[in-house]
Amino acid sequence: MGSSFGKLFKISTFGESHGKGIGAVLEGCPAGLEINEDFIQAELDRRKPGQSKITTQRQEGDKVELLSGIFEGKATGTPIGMVIYNEDQRSKDYSHIAEKFRPSHADYTYQVKYGVRDYRGGGRSSARETAARVASGSIAKMFLKTLGIECYAYVSQVGSLKLEKSYQELDLGKIDDNIVRCPDGPTAEKMIDLIDEVRKSRDTIGGIVTGVIKGVPPGLGEPVFEKLHAELGKAMLSINAVKGFEFGSGFEGITMRGSEHNDVFYKDGDTVKTKSNHSGGIQGGISNGEDIFFRVAFKPVATIMTDQESVDVHGDTTTVTGKGRHDPCVVPRAVPIVEAMSALVIADYYLINKTVRLT
Amino acid sequence: MGSSFGKLFKISTFGESHGKGIGAVLEGCPAGLEINEDFIQAELDRRKPGQSKITTQRQEGDKVELLSGIFEGKATGTPIGMVIYNEDQRSKDYSHIAEKFRPSHADYTYQVKYGVRDYRGGGRSSARETAARVASGSIAKMFLKTLGIECYAYVSQVGSLKLEKSYQELDLGKIDDNIVRCPDGPTAEKMIDLIDEVRKSRDTIGGIVTGVIKGVPPGLGEPVFEKLHAELGKAMLSINAVKGFEFGSGFEGITMRGSEHNDVFYKDGDTVKTKSNHSGGIQGGISNGEDIFFRVAFKPVATIMTDQESVDVHGDTTTVTGKGRHDPCVVPRAVPIVEAMSALVIADYYLINKTVRLT
Amino acid sequence: MGSSFGKLFKISTFGESHGKGIGAVLEGCPAGLEINEDFIQAELDRRKPGQSKITTQRQEGDKVELLSGIFEGKATGTPIGMVIYNEDQRSKDYSHIAEKFRPSHADYTYQVKYGVRDYRGGGRSSARETAARVASGSIAKMFLKTLGIECYAYVSQVGSLKLEKSYQELDLGKIDDNIVRCPDGPTAEKMIDLIDEVRKSRDTIGGIVTGVIKGVPPGLGEPVFEKLHAELGKAMLSINAVKGFEFGSGFEGITMRGSEHNDVFYKDGDTVKTKSNHSGGIQGGISNGEDIFFRVAFKPVATIMTDQESVDVHGDTTTVTGKGRHDPCVVPRAVPIVEAMSALVIADYYLINKTVRLT
Amino acid sequence: MGSSFGKLFKISTFGESHGKGIGAVLEGCPAGLEINEDFIQAELDRRKPGQSKITTQRQEGDKVELLSGIFEGKATGTPIGMVIYNEDQRSKDYSHIAEKFRPSHADYTYQVKYGVRDYRGGGRSSARETAARVASGSIAKMFLKTLGIECYAYVSQVGSLKLEKSYQELDLGKIDDNIVRCPDGPTAEKMIDLIDEVRKSRDTIGGIVTGVIKGVPPGLGEPVFEKLHAELGKAMLSINAVKGFEFGSGFEGITMRGSEHNDVFYKDGDTVKTKSNHSGGIQGGISNGEDIFFRVAFKPVATIMTDQESVDVHGDTTTVTGKGRHDPCVVPRAVPIVEAMSALVIADYYLINKTVRLT
Repeated sequence: MGSSFGKLFKISTFGESHGKGIGAVLEGCPAGLEINEDFIQAELDRRKPGQSKITTQRQEGDKVELLSGIFEGKATGTPIGMVIYNEDQRSKDYSHIAEKFRPSHADYTYQVKYGVRDYRGGGRSSARETAARVASGSIAKMFLKTLGIECYAYVSQVGSLKLEKSYQELDLGKIDDNIVRCPDGPTAEKMIDLIDEVRKSRDTIGGIVTGVIKGVPPGLGEPVFEKLHAELGKAMLSINAVKGFEFGSGFEGITMRGSEHNDVFYKDGDTVKTKSNHSGGIQGGISNGEDIFFRVAFKPVATIMTDQESVDVHGDTTTVTGKGRHDPCVVPRAVPIVEAMSALVIADYYLINKTVRLT
Repeated sequence: MGSSFGKLFKISTFGESHGKGIGAVLEGCPAGLEINEDFIQAELDRRKPGQSKITTQRQEGDKVELLSGIFEGKATGTPIGMVIYNEDQRSKDYSHIAEKFRPSHADYTYQVKYGVRDYRGGGRSSARETAARVASGSIAKMFLKTLGIECYAYVSQVGSLKLEKSYQELDLGKIDDNIVRCPDGPTAEKMIDLIDEVRKSRDTIGGIVTGVIKGVPPGLGEPVFEKLHAELGKAMLSINAVKGFEFGSGFEGITMRGSEHNDVFYKDGDTVKTKSNHSGGIQGGISNGEDIFFRVAFKPVATIMTDQESVDVHGDTTTVTGKGRHDPCVVPRAVPIVEAMSALVIADYYLINKTVRLT
Repeated sequence: MGSSFGKLFKISTFGESHGKGIGAVLEGCPAGLEINEDFIQAELDRRKPGQSKITTQRQEGDKVELLSGIFEGKATGTPIGMVIYNEDQRSKDYSHIAEKFRPSHADYTYQVKYGVRDYRGGGRSSARETAARVASGSIAKMFLKTLGIECYAYVSQVGSLKLEKSYQELDLGKIDDNIVRCPDGPTAEKMIDLIDEVRKSRDTIGGIVTGVIKGVPPGLGEPVFEKLHAELGKAMLSINAVKGFEFGSGFEGITMRGSEHNDVFYKDGDTVKTKSNHSGGIQGGISNGEDIFFRVAFKPVATIMTDQESVDVHGDTTTVTGKGRHDPCVVPRAVPIVEAMSALVIADYYLINKTVRLT
Repeated sequence: MGSSFGKLFKISTFGESHGKGIGAVLEGCPAGLEINEDFIQAELDRRKPGQSKITTQRQEGDKVELLSGIFEGKATGTPIGMVIYNEDQRSKDYSHIAEKFRPSHADYTYQVKYGVRDYRGGGRSSARETAARVASGSIAKMFLKTLGIECYAYVSQVGSLKLEKSYQELDLGKIDDNIVRCPDGPTAEKMIDLIDEVRKSRDTIGGIVTGVIKGVPPGLGEPVFEKLHAELGKAMLSINAVKGFEFGSGFEGITMRGSEHNDVFYKDGDTVKTKSNHSGGIQGGISNGEDIFFRVAFKPVATIMTDQESVDVHGDTTTVTGKGRHDPCVVPRAVPIVEAMSALVIADYYLINKTVRLT
C-alpha cells in the first residue's frame, strides 16, 4: 500500500532508483484531453539531475514513454501507462553501503519493515520516484490549463536566506529564469552562492518551496477528512525530505487575534471576494476562489560527502563514507515536484466536485 | 466523499452541529479488544464544551451510545456504530446568520459547493464533528495500549506565548492538570491569563498543540504517498482551524547543515537507536522506533464577539454581529482531538504493517 | 473491512441482529435531493419480517431515524446517518445455539475468523443488516427517480416452480400486489401454496429474484474491473443466501452461436438501439441504453425447524434443534433488497460517469 | 476508475490491444516472496493467442518485462511494475471498423461514454488486457503456493456439450493435457471437435469454466459487502464475455429443501468439516476450509466471420464484415484468466485476514 495517490484522477507509481525503470499508471484522465508529449518531457527535464552546478552531476535522460490511454493525440479516458527506463546507474557507487544504514536515510526503516531491500541508490526511497509524479502531474497541469488553473512553485528560502517578497510581489513567469528557481534575481544569486558554498564544504542545506495555485474555482475540497488543504498537505509531506507544511497564515497566524485574522468578504462585481487572504484560499476545507498558497519545508539532504558513524545490518558499528553524486540542496529540483503534486490534487478534487450536486 | 478516514482501522463519520445527532461507524477494530465505555466517555469529556472559563460556555453532555460491534465487553471485529445525540442546540442563536457569510467560516464555501447548507451552528463544518473523532480515537487508543503505544498532545503555544521546554523536559502525565492542558504549571498559568484576557476583549487567539507518540515499533508507514508523517499531517490538517503541521526538526530544520541534522545510529543493547531525533521518529516515511513528535498550528477562532462587515447569500453587503457562546482559543479542547487523530493513524498503520512481509 | 459499499454514492453499515441497533452512513448523496422519509419507511416495510403467513412471524417495527445530512427536507451533500433500533429481540430464543455451529450458517466461520462472536440471531451475519441496505437504497431510488431510472425486482422462481413469462410480458407495477411479489397472479398463488406447504413441513426452499433496471442512460460502467455487471453481481452476491448471478442471456446463452447471440444495432429516430438484448443492456461493462436485467439465485434458508447434527465450539458432536421464527423462503422479502442494491450501484456509477469526459 | 483490483494485494492495469504495450503495477506483494520469472511467462503462454487450431491464429510473444519491486530474485514489498509490449498489431485489419459499431462489442458504449476511442482491435475493451491479469495473478499464485493454496480452472462445458463429472472425479493435474483444457480426455476430444466445427462455419460458441480453489484456510472473507464469493463473483464477471457466476450449489440449489441443502458439520480429528459442500467452501461470506468451487459462463465471442448489419458513428446503417483472426470459443484461453483472478482474490483476502484479530 502507499504507491497510489488520488481518488478519481489517480496514479499508481512504481520503480526503484537502480532497477530497470520507474513509471506510473494514471487513471481518470478525462477523455478528450489533448496530450502534449513535449510538455511532459519539458517538465521532467526541470526535475532531472545534472541541470546545473548546484544540482547533482548525475546524468539521466529521463525519457518518458507513453504506452496507453492516448489515441491520435487525445486521452481516451483509459489508463495512461508511463515508463522511464533507468540509465547511468553506476550501481558500484552504492556497493559500499549495501550493508550499512546511512544516517537519516530510509535504509534502516526499510530493512526493518520489509526484511529485504534494494539498497542501490536508496531503491524505492530514492527521490528518483518523483519523476513518475512529475510525468503524471504534467498531465494534470494540461487538464487544469483547460480550466484556467495554474500551479506555481518557487524557492523562497535556502538555509536562513529568505526571499522577503510575498508571491504577489513576484513575477511567477520568471521562476525558471535562474538555476535556483527563485523568481527574484538578486535573491536568487545569493541563494546560488550559498548552495555552492555548502556544496564545496561537502555538506548540504535545507530550504522552503512556496506553492501558489491560481484560478481555482470556489467549491473544491471534501469535508471533513479530505479538506483541500489536508490533501495538499499530505501530497507535499509525501515528497522526500519534507518536514513541514503550512498554508495561508500558517504558523505565523497563531499570534494574531481573530479580529485581525478574519478575511472580510466583499463584492467585486458579481463575485464574492475577501479583502485579506489569511485563509490561503481555503475555508472549511473548500476553496473560496482566492489564490491558494502554501509553504513546504525541506530538510538538508541526508547524503553528505564526509564520513559519518553508523550501524550496519549485523548490528556492528561502522563508518559511512561520503561518495557519489548528490544534491547539496534539494529545493531547486523540488519546484516541479511541488507543482506536480499540486496539480494532481486540484485535478482530482475538480473531478470529485462535479458529483456533489443534484444539478 | 471526505467523511471517511483510514484504510483498515477506518471511520466514517456523520452529523451536523444542530441536527439530531452525530456519530461514526468504526470498521476494522480488531476482534477481541476489550472496550472500556467509561474511557470513551472520559475522552469525550476532555473535548466537550463548557469545561472551564477559557472554553465556550455551551453545555453538551456528549453521551456516546455504542450500537454494535461489541459483545460481552469485547470488540467482535464487526463495525462499531456510535451515536451522540445533540442537546442544548439553541438554534435561535444562529437564526441571525442564516443568510450571512461569516468571515473566515465555511458558510460561503459550503453554499457555493452544495447550493444548500445547514447554517445552524456551522452545520457539518462545526468542530462538533470532532466528537465523533474523539470517540473513535479513544477506541484506537485502547488498541494501542495493548501494544504499549501512547499518544500524547499538549498546548505548547498560545499567541506569542511559547512553552520553552521540549517534550522530553516535561511530565506528559500532567497534561490534564490544568485547564489549558500545558504540562508546565507556570506557563499554563500565563496561557490561561492570556486566553482570559482575549476572551474579555471579545476576541480570539491561536496556538500550537504538540503531539508526541511513544512506543511505536519501527516499520510503520507506507512509502511513497502514504508516508507515516504524510498521513499524520493530513489527519492534523483535517482538524478545524489547523493551518500548519511540522514534525521532527520541522521548519526550523531547514537552516541546519546536513552534517548537523543527520541522526547518527548507534546500538543500545540489541536495539538500533539514533543519538539525535531531528527525524521525529520517522525516516523515509517509516517509523524508526524513536519517539514521534510534531506540532500543529491552530488559527484564532473565526467567531468573535464584535461586529464584522460581510456579504449575504443575495450578494448584498451586511453586518455579522458577535453573538453566541464560543471558544476564545481552540487549543485546550484540541488536545484530545490531536491525540485521537494520532491514535487513528497509528492503529491503521499498525494493521497495514501486519501484511507487508511474507513471514 | 467489508461493511462499506460504493465509491462516490457510498454506504458504511453497522449492526447486529440483536444488538442495540443497526444503521448506515450514506456519503455522496447529491445536495439538493428532496428526501421523502415516508418513502424510506415504506421500503423498509416491504423488507421487514412479519408481513404475511409466508414470512417469519417476528415483529419488528424497523423505524428508521435520520440523524444528519438533511435540512428542510433536502439532502445537504453531507453524510446521512441512519439508525434503526432493534426491538422484539427475544435473545433467549438463541441461547440454545450460543455454543453450537448451526449447519450452513455463518456461526463456524465467524468463530474461526474472529475468535469471538455475537451469536444472538446470527449477529452481524443475520439478514437483519439488509435493513440498512434498504434504507440507503431507498435514497438511491429517489435520486434515480429524478433521472428517470427505475429499479424493479420480482420473484421469478420458487423451488422448481418457474414463472414462464419474461419481464417484458409482465406489468412491473404489480409486483407488490401479492405477498410473494411475483407480478403474475396465477403463478404467485402457486408459489404461495408451495412456500406454505414447505413451511408446514418445517423446512425451507430456495428461489430466484429477477431484477430489471429501466431508463439507464448509455455510458454507465467502468472498465475493466468495475464493469457495470461485475459490480451489480457483487452487490447481489453480497446479499445473504445468494448463490448465483447472471445477466442478459446468462448461463443459457452459452449454448447459442455468436451469430444468434449478437445484438444487432439499428436506429430508432436519433437513438441507437439493439434488436435483441442478450447483452442485458450492458456491453463491454458499460450500459448501452437498453433495459438491464439479471437473475439472482437464493438458496433455501439454512434455519429449519427440525433437528440437525452438528459440532459445537468445543469440538464436540451436538444436535441443533429447530426453534425460533424464520422465513420458509427468503425471496419475497429479498425483492426490496435486490432493488436497493441495484439502485445503490446505478446511483454510484451515474456519479462516476459525470467525471470521465473533458466536456 | 475501474482499472484497479484488490485492496492490499492490488493491481492497476493499463493498455490497449494495439497501443504500444499493456501492463500492470502490483502493490502489496509480500516482501521476501521468491519470484520465478519463468513461471510468470509460462502462465502468460497459457493465455496467449496462437496456441492451437481452436484458438485465434494471431501470434503474440507476450513477453513480460519486470521493471521494479524485485531484488536478487525476491519481492521487496515495493510495487512490481510489469510491461508487455504489443507485437504483430496489423492495425490495418481494423481500419474497416474504425467508424462502425460491431454488434455485441463495446464499440458503441465506449464511444458514448468517452466520445473518443481507440478502435484498433477493440482498444481497452479487448481481451488483450487480461494478459496483465495473468501476469499479476501468476505472482499471486506463487504467494499462495507458499501457503499450500492452489487455484485450478478447467473447461466444463462448450455449447450444450457438458462434462458430466464433478471436479472431485477429475485429475486437476491434467488440465493442460489437451488444447481445450478439459481434464477428461474423451470429453475434451468432443469439445475440440465441436469448436473446430463452429470455427469452420465462421461462427462462435460459448462455454463454462469451472474454478476450484484448494487449501484455503477457514476465515477468509469480509462481511457484509465483501463476502468472499461476492468478490470472486465480481472478479469473474469482470472477465470479457462473462455472463454469469455461481458457486457451490448455485442456481440448481434453489430447488432443494433446506434439510437437503444444509451441510452438516462433523469432526475429522481436530478439524471441523462438512459432510456435503453445497456451500462451496464459503459460509456467511467466509471460507470454511472446504474446497471452494464455482462456475463461470462465457457467451459466444461477438466477432464472427460473417457479415452483420449495424450502425456507424454517424448514425447511418452499415454492414460489419467478418475479418481478422479471432477465437471461435473463448473458454480454453479463459482458463488461466479464471485461475489468475481467483489467485488475486484469495491472496488479497489472505492479507486482509491477518489484520482482523487482536492476537
